[in-house]
Amino acid sequence: MLEEIDLQVQRLLRRVNQQTLRHLDGSYQVATKSSYSDLVTTIDRQNEQEIDHQLRVIDPGCRILSEEGYGDRQLDDLAGHVWIVDPLDGTLNFVKQHDHFGIMLALYVDGHPTLGYIMDAVNQALYHGGNGWGVFKGDHRLTPPANTDLHDSLVAISSSLVLDDVANLTQVARQASGLRMYGSAAMEMIGVLSGELGAYISHLRPWDLAAGRVLAEELGLTVKSIDADGISVLSSNLVLVATKRAGQDILELTD
Amino acid sequence: MLEEIDLQVQRLLRRVNQQTLRHLDGSYQVATKSSYSDLVTTIDRQNEQEIDHQLRVIDPGCRILSEEGYGDRQLDDLAGHVWIVDPLDGTLNFVKQHDHFGIMLALYVDGHPTLGYIMDAVNQALYHGGNGWGVFKGDHRLTPPANTDLHDSLVAISSSLVLDDVANLTQVARQASGLRMYGSAAMEMIGVLSGELGAYISHLRPWDLAAGRVLAEELGLTVKSIDADGISVLSSNLVLVATKRAGQDILELTD
Repeated sequence: MLEEIDLQVQRLLRRVNQQTLRHLDGSYQVATKSSYSDLVTTIDRQNEQEIDHQLRVIDPGCRILSEEGYGDRQLDDLAGHVWIVDPLDGTLNFVKQHDHFGIMLALYVDGHPTLGYIMDAVNQALYHGGNGWGVFKGDHRLTPPANTDLHDSLVAISSSLVLDDVANLTQVARQASGLRMYGSAAMEMIGVLSGELGAYISHLRPWDLAAGRVLAEELGLTVKSIDADGISVLSSNLVLVATKRAGQDILELTD
Repeated sequence: MLEEIDLQVQRLLRRVNQQTLRHLDGSYQVATKSSYSDLVTTIDRQNEQEIDHQLRVIDPGCRILSEEGYGDRQLDDLAGHVWIVDPLDGTLNFVKQHDHFGIMLALYVDGHPTLGYIMDAVNQALYHGGNGWGVFKGDHRLTPPANTDLHDSLVAISSSLVLDDVANLTQVARQASGLRMYGSAAMEMIGVLSGELGAYISHLRPWDLAAGRVLAEELGLTVKSIDADGISVLSSNLVLVATKRAGQDILELTD
């Protein structure tokens, strides 16, 4: 059952990604949301409508939480199958760089992180897995990243957290091997999954976190809230995704 | 004469890059230089020895300024043909990410920025040009990037400048569309040349700046020192490489 859903979702994501890449020539409209750098394009919306529609076919009876509002209107609990959808992550990069953006999907079953999908759009590389199956890049199974400490890790921290020195994170950046910022949760999650980054810290909304959390936990990585006791899948969280050792080092600095 | 040198240098760079990529399996040694995150590998040194050796064959009588010290020992002036060589830029990324690093070369003739080469190593994309010929990615001629202002630009600023708020650069970051950090001057220069970034600001040594300066000026972009009157090719500089409008906006904020 879950296996069949998984295969169909992988096909769906590859198809939606192909459609997205065809629009890199600029055939879309852009609008702003909360601020001038918080963008949404007609591609975000088209992708979400198609993904949400197809998920209801692939997994009848599921409920959907998706960024641009085409999912279920009221979603106050996680009973049953809940899909969390980011139809285009890194929209600013999509518009300005034509690179460094992704698409993310996750399935939570009765609140349990179950399946995750992160598509590195331009490289057409799909990171997927969960449910005890492992994590894969396409057909290739990922080995868990080396358990580096903070001092030996490159870390990605979102810019506003560094500029405002939230939760002592500038100190985290200073103690790391180096600081990186890619401007897309999808790209930064992939960085941690692949071992290119030892940690990623950001204020994440449900669709920014859901897929990365499934895949990171499946690889034995740490996924923790920095500013609260637990992670709520239905709200925003200041979250770290990290190797166990880098995660410990960071939590000591941010206490 | 310059045309023949250019073709031979392009071939040299492609060959050295192939050798570099063969070492991504980890068959090299790493040592530290000025700090634990300032790395040099045996690949940096092998590349530099080969590049310097071949440049003396390709351009007899030239002088060479190169990062790891295999070039000319004394270089106090820029008379004649001077090659400036970064045999592996982004060594920390090379070691930890196996991605996001490059190789850079530039020819200055009597102090005049003449030819520049930046190899995006993993993507095997060579950005090259100068001397009024234009700038090319492989065989494809680049069009000058859109002249975006700071507000409408993604900018890359090196992490230490942001963490220490050098020259009011946190304000520059706040006024930009977004802040990015890739950890390699080669990657960040390519970002500006391709229009993915509206500006790149960093403290750059001669080999970090030389090639990017040639190519950026060839495209009509601004290359300016932030903390001094002019740029010295023989010393370190706090430099911005930017669109004309973003460059103006940044210089007003950093005055």
